[in-house]
Amino acid sequence: MAKLLGNQTVLLDKQPIILSGAAIVGKKEGDGPLAKYFDDIVDDEYAGEKTFEAAESRILRDAFIKLLEKSGKASTDINLILSGDLLNQCTAASYAFRDVDIPYLGLYGACSTMSESMTIASMLIDGGSIDYAVCAASSHFCSAERQYRFPLEYGSQRTPTAQWTVTGAGAVLLGKKGQGPRITSVTPGKIIDEGIKDSNNMGAAMSPAACDTILNHLNDTGRTVDDMDIILTGDLGSFGTTMLRELLIKNGIDPKNKLSDCGTLIFNLEKQGVVCGGSGCGCSASVFSTYILDQFSKGILNRVLFVATGALLSPTRIQQGETIPSIAHAVLVEA
Amino acid sequence: MAKLLGNQTVLLDKQPIILSGAAIVGKKEGDGPLAKYFDDIVDDEYAGEKTFEAAESRILRDAFIKLLEKSGKASTDINLILSGDLLNQCTAASYAFRDVDIPYLGLYGACSTMSESMTIASMLIDGGSIDYAVCAASSHFCSAERQYRFPLEYGSQRTPTAQWTVTGAGAVLLGKKGQGPRITSVTPGKIIDEGIKDSNNMGAAMSPAACDTILNHLNDTGRTVDDMDIILTGDLGSFGTTMLRELLIKNGIDPKNKLSDCGTLIFNLEKQGVVCGGSGCGCSASVFSTYILDQFSKGILNRVLFVATGALLSPTRIQQGETIPSIAHAVLVEA
Repeated sequence: MAKLLGNQTVLLDKQPIILSGAAIVGKKEGDGPLAKYFDDIVDDEYAGEKTFEAAESRILRDAFIKLLEKSGKASTDINLILSGDLLNQCTAASYAFRDVDIPYLGLYGACSTMSESMTIASMLIDGGSIDYAVCAASSHFCSAERQYRFPLEYGSQRTPTAQWTVTGAGAVLLGKKGQGPRITSVTPGKIIDEGIKDSNNMGAAMSPAACDTILNHLNDTGRTVDDMDIILTGDLGSFGTTMLRELLIKNGIDPKNKLSDCGTLIFNLEKQGVVCGGSGCGCSASVFSTYILDQFSKGILNRVLFVATGALLSPTRIQQGETIPSIAHAVLVEA
Repeated sequence: MAKLLGNQTVLLDKQPIILSGAAIVGKKEGDGPLAKYFDDIVDDEYAGEKTFEAAESRILRDAFIKLLEKSGKASTDINLILSGDLLNQCTAASYAFRDVDIPYLGLYGACSTMSESMTIASMLIDGGSIDYAVCAASSHFCSAERQYRFPLEYGSQRTPTAQWTVTGAGAVLLGKKGQGPRITSVTPGKIIDEGIKDSNNMGAAMSPAACDTILNHLNDTGRTVDDMDIILTGDLGSFGTTMLRELLIKNGIDPKNKLSDCGTLIFNLEKQGVVCGGSGCGCSASVFSTYILDQFSKGILNRVLFVATGALLSPTRIQQGETIPSIAHAVLVEA
């Protein structure tokens, strides 16, 4: 039986297993350093659909179908899908999963959605409520840009702290039995708002939330940075990762060489013109579901604290002069 | 330990308890038939804030504070808040809970959010992951109208199937021990899309989802309509409730006089000019958290299947010619 550990960590008794993962990404992501790990690279930004929004639903749905194929499961084996995205009213996920005939829980955690879904699903499997769950998230550069910033046709310049929304969808299958790395504890995050107002500097807004969740996880479990192979954030980008390092040191924790970030892993920051790196729910979802799981299967990684981070802003609230609340949910994954 | 029952119902072993509820609503709701049950009625549509969006966060936060007061709990007693709303990027909830220092799970289920949050929280408590959770949801007529339809200043006419977004926030406290009605099983819903395209007819779009979840709950549990005091949907309105009745009969289930709907309970449909009734996450949240819990405490209700329904559309996807996917999550509440 699961139990609460310290302030906000849940120690999982049955340790749900990550049975499989799959990801489909866009062309730019396919030109990046992780290309060979992705299951498919879609060159057409419309993915054969008529709109960017429909394209995002399409790649999310296709990642789900690929996941079922890879895991040898039928959709009737899956008890729940937990998913979300950045689009208004989370329609990428709602439209992707509207005819799969599987119970569905819609989440909104901005770019923390992947670890939020894994946090909830692993507690539900541990508690016996369900046996198998799919956790998935997506984002799309074109649908996100026009919703959050400007229509692409404007050709807006990017600020020095900007990140590049990943076109991608990632999905993992969690189950009560089988082979794969295990989720041994989870630390759902608190909403943290340190007063950042610049919506082109999400890394700065999110790093305090990542710091808070990491500190609480380490305090609750009695573990140290040395116990982790990596602490994998998603997606602080290069600027936010530097801020996280400073915040951790300020709080007495030296992260040494353990910090890694999905937003800096997915692109070549020097060559691909993405400024501080990737962002979007689909970034950490696709990096975790493929590259990270591959590193586990090869024995290169054995213990990873996966901490996806989300900036819970809206364009409306920012235009009203508000600051950016953020959140980070952590799942500890062990071989 | 929880167990799966039939296709999609989870039978809860520990039966989490609804310890308390609270709701704060707007002036129009305070003029309706349930006025005396609400904890506070806010005459100012800005609730003392500068924007409608900030006002929605304010009433949600105040409902949460009222809930803590009524239940005699401190915020440190609460392990998790599960909440969501209709605003883009779910900012009513994110901004409401940004400084309460409690782990937070953001949900998006449109108007099904209240039963979605109770579905997840009761499974988490049952599984031992947490002891106490707050489930909450909100909506605001003014913030919803300008986001989904037209700026209020346009004074648009309403169609014969329109519903009126409730200004209101409701919250319940679920716990592993104490006094109150119990959640004995939950049926998370599937996304159903029967091809309705009229975003002014949400009742029609959502009734097939309500029907599907109710049928699955009854099949999975072996119960009948006669076992329920009421089947409480939220918010199909009068038109959607008529459709649900027809759909159930078509599927061999006569709902008799058991159907009740939060959207028709909260307003006087003849006198208040709300056409088919209330809608919005805050409608079922505020009706369930106060009036329904009051009826349990008086012994008038003893078994209620609470089935909040959500239309998972977005204005963007509707403008692109898409249909409206919908969902309904059911929780069985017993004295």
